Amino acid sequence: MGGDYYGYRGVAAELLRSAGAVPGDRVEISSGGRRFAGILMPREALYGDRPFIVVKLDNGYNVGVRVSPDSVVRVLEKRRVVERKPMAAAGPGAKDLPRVKLLGTGGTIMSRVDYETGAVKPLLSVSDLLEWVPELRDIAAIDAAEILSIFSEDMEPRLWGRVAEHVYRALVDEGYDGVVVAHGTDTMAYTAAALAFAVRNPPAPIVLVGAQRSSDRPSTDSALNLVAAFLAAARGPFAESVIVMHGETGDGAAYVHRGVKARKMHTSRRDAFQSINDKPIAVIDPYSGEIRITGRILRRRGDPGGPVLMNRFEEKVALIKIYPGISPEVIDYYIDHGYKGLVLEGTGLGHAPNKLLGSIERAVEEDIVVVMTSQCLFGRVNMHVYATGRRYLHAGVLPGGDMLPETAYVKLSWALGVAGDPGEAKRLMLENIAGEYNPRHTLDLYPRWGI
Amino acid sequence: MGGDYYGYRGVAAELLRSAGAVPGDRVEISSGGRRFAGILMPREALYGDRPFIVVKLDNGYNVGVRVSPDSVVRVLEKRRVVERKPMAAAGPGAKDLPRVKLLGTGGTIMSRVDYETGAVKPLLSVSDLLEWVPELRDIAAIDAAEILSIFSEDMEPRLWGRVAEHVYRALVDEGYDGVVVAHGTDTMAYTAAALAFAVRNPPAPIVLVGAQRSSDRPSTDSALNLVAAFLAAARGPFAESVIVMHGETGDGAAYVHRGVKARKMHTSRRDAFQSINDKPIAVIDPYSGEIRITGRILRRRGDPGGPVLMNRFEEKVALIKIYPGISPEVIDYYIDHGYKGLVLEGTGLGHAPNKLLGSIERAVEEDIVVVMTSQCLFGRVNMHVYATGRRYLHAGVLPGGDMLPETAYVKLSWALGVAGDPGEAKRLMLENIAGEYNPRHTLDLYPRWGI
Repeated sequence: MGGDYYGYRGVAAELLRSAGAVPGDRVEISSGGRRFAGILMPREALYGDRPFIVVKLDNGYNVGVRVSPDSVVRVLEKRRVVERKPMAAAGPGAKDLPRVKLLGTGGTIMSRVDYETGAVKPLLSVSDLLEWVPELRDIAAIDAAEILSIFSEDMEPRLWGRVAEHVYRALVDEGYDGVVVAHGTDTMAYTAAALAFAVRNPPAPIVLVGAQRSSDRPSTDSALNLVAAFLAAARGPFAESVIVMHGETGDGAAYVHRGVKARKMHTSRRDAFQSINDKPIAVIDPYSGEIRITGRILRRRGDPGGPVLMNRFEEKVALIKIYPGISPEVIDYYIDHGYKGLVLEGTGLGHAPNKLLGSIERAVEEDIVVVMTSQCLFGRVNMHVYATGRRYLHAGVLPGGDMLPETAYVKLSWALGVAGDPGEAKRLMLENIAGEYNPRHTLDLYPRWGI
Repeated sequence: MGGDYYGYRGVAAELLRSAGAVPGDRVEISSGGRRFAGILMPREALYGDRPFIVVKLDNGYNVGVRVSPDSVVRVLEKRRVVERKPMAAAGPGAKDLPRVKLLGTGGTIMSRVDYETGAVKPLLSVSDLLEWVPELRDIAAIDAAEILSIFSEDMEPRLWGRVAEHVYRALVDEGYDGVVVAHGTDTMAYTAAALAFAVRNPPAPIVLVGAQRSSDRPSTDSALNLVAAFLAAARGPFAESVIVMHGETGDGAAYVHRGVKARKMHTSRRDAFQSINDKPIAVIDPYSGEIRITGRILRRRGDPGGPVLMNRFEEKVALIKIYPGISPEVIDYYIDHGYKGLVLEGTGLGHAPNKLLGSIERAVEEDIVVVMTSQCLFGRVNMHVYATGRRYLHAGVLPGGDMLPETAYVKLSWALGVAGDPGEAKRLMLENIAGEYNPRHTLDLYPRWGI
C-alpha cells in the first residue's frame, strides 16, 4: 500500500495505481458526486500526502480534486506520445559545425513536465536538450548557460543589460557563430529590441526564441521553434537581433522577425509574433533546413563596424497609453518623480488631448525627453497634419515615426542610459539605429482581415 | 492692385493672380533662392496682409512661404476636380424614406476647404451636405444637429454621456429610424463602445462615421463613408452601436464593425478600422446599396427590450499599459488619487510583473475595480495557465476575456458610473452587455500577414 506514485502517496496513489493511470493520460475522476475530466498531472512530492489528484482541465487550469477511498478514477484516453517528423537536413560534418551558445532566461520553452519522474524539469543541460530535440546535433555544436530563471513578465531594463552582456561576450570574447536566447514570450519583443540597441554591430545573429505551448502538449511549438532558432543562429546571414517563432503556415515553418519591428499579437496562437511595419526577414523550413530571405537584411555577418556593448538602460522611463479620460496630473506625476523619459502611445497620427499640453510643455522644460507614438501600431506618426499634432511638436515632443510604442520605450530607456545628456538622447531617438524606423512602407505591410 | 484673392492680399495676391493660380492647384514658389512645391491653400482673411503664400507639401504639412515682388509662382498642375461615380441605388419613393438624424461632433469628415471662398466650412447644414453628396437624398430624410465641435482626441467620458443622450432622444423621443454620429477617427472606437453601453436596447442602428482623408483630397473617403453610414442607419437590420468606415476592398465597399469590437489599426489608411476578435457585421456596397451580412447580429430592429439611457461615466478610471520597467508606485499613484477603476493592459495571457502584486492587492482592498486585458489585442486573457496569472486572479483582478483594452476601459467607466457599488460594477464587468465578449473564436479571426 502507498509508496510514491508519480509524486502521489496514500489514497490518491492507490486510486491511480488501480486505474492504471499515468500522468499525461486523460482521466475522469468521480468524487463526492462530482465529475472532473482532464489530463492527469504528476504531483509535487511536497504535497504528495494530501488526498488530492491534480488534473489539467481543457481550459488549461490545473485543479486538485479531493478524493477518498470511495472515489473512482477512470482512464478515458492513454497519453498520446507526441510523435514528431524529424527536422533539419543534416549539416556539414560534425567537425565543421558552427558553434552556437544557448542562453537560458526562463519561460515555457525551457521547461517540461517529465511524466516519468513527475518533476517540472528545466531543459538547461545540453544533454537534456539534445535528448529531447536530437536534430540539433546536426545543426550546431551547442554550449548552454542559464543566465536568468524568471517569468518574462518579470523582466526589467537592468536585466536587459545583463542579457546583453552575456550575448556580447559569447559573440565577441568567446567567438560563437550565433547566440540563441530562450525567453518567455510575454516580453520577448521588448528584450529583442533591447539587445538590438545594446549590442551594436553584432558579428553574428542574436536569436530570441520561445514557445506558446509547453512541451507536454501535443500542439507544442517548442521543438520546431528551437530547431529554427538554431538554424538561424548557426547559418542565418543576418547579424541582427531577431525573434524566431512559429509562422503557422500549413507546413510548419518559422518566421524570422526583426527584433525592433516585432510584436506579440495574440495571447495563445503559435504564430503570435508578427512583424509590424516591416516584413519578416526570413522564413525557415525546419524540415529541409532552408532559410528563405523574405525581407531586408540590414546587417550581415562580416559587415564592417566593430561590435560595441552599450548596455546601460535608464529605469526612469514610462510608456503611457493615451485614452479619452486621461488627466494631466498623470503626466505631472512622472515629472515630479524624477522620470527622464516619457513615451506617449497616442491616438491616430500622433495625438493626445489638448488638455495635456501644459503638462507636456512642463516636462520638456524640465529636460524630460518625450516621444510620440501611435496606439494604431500600423502606419507612422505624422504630427504635421492636424493642429493638435503641430502643437505637440511645437512643445518639443519628438515624433516616433513608424516605431512601435514598445520599441520606442526600450529605445528611450537605452538612449537615456548611454547618452551623456538629454540632447544626445534626443539625437539618438531620431537616428535609425537598428532598423526601428522603416522609411518605406508598402501596401502589403498591413495584414488582411478576413470577412 | 491688391484686393482680396482667396484671402490673400498685397504681394501674395499679386503673385498668385498673375500666375493664374487658384487654391487646389499644384504650384511651385521660388523665393529667396529656395523652391517649394505643393498644393496652394486659401488664406485665412485675418492673416491675408502678411507676405506669405500657404502651400500643403506632399507630406501633408502646410507651410507659409515668405514672398517678395521678386518671387515667382508657377502653376505645375491645375486643381483636379474630384470626379465621383454616383453611389447608392435609388431607395423607395421620397415620401417613404426612412428618417435619419445626423449628429455632428467634429472631425475631418464634417469640414472641407471651400476653394472658392477660401474658408474651412463645417458641413453641418443639411443643404450643404446634400449639395456635396446628393446621393444621400435617395437614402433618407435627413435632419442634422451639431452637438459638439471638437477634435476627437479631446473627447472625454462626460462628453460620451452627452452624445448618448442626443442619440437616445433621436431614436426614442423623436422616433428616427437611425442615427449617424459624425466623429473624428482618433477616438471613434472609444465613443462607439460608450454608446453601446450607455444606450441599452436601442430600437435602431447607432452609426459612427468619420474620414481618414479630408474631402479636399482626391483619395478622400468621406463621401463613400457617409453614403454607407446613411445606408446602415436607414436600412441596416442591426440595432447596435456600429462603426461604418471604408473597407479598402477593390471596389470600394464599407465595413460595419461592432462598436465594442473595433479598433483604429492604422494611422493613415482608409481601412484603418478593423474588427478584433469578431467579424464585421456587414459589408455595404455604396454603389448598389446592398448590405451583405457577414457576422453576427446581436440585436435587431424591433427586438424586445425597451430602450434605457444609462449615460453616467466615472471619470476616475485609468487605462494602464504594462511594460517591463513599470514601477509599483505608478499603481500607488492611482490608489492615492481616488481612482475607482483600473484597466491593466497586461502582457500575454493577462500578466503583469509580480512586483506590482502588492500594490494591486492594496487597490482591490480599497474597493478599486481592477480588470486585466492583453496588449496582444488578439485572443483572450487566460489567467489560469501560469502562476503569475493565478496570483493576480487570487488578488481579486477580474479577467477581461477577449475584450479590447480600450473597450474594457470604457466599460469600466460606465459600470462604475451606473452601478450603486463596486460589487455591482464587478458583476456588470463580467456580464456580456453589448457583445464585448465573443465566446467563440474561429481561426479566421486572426488576420493574415503577408511575407
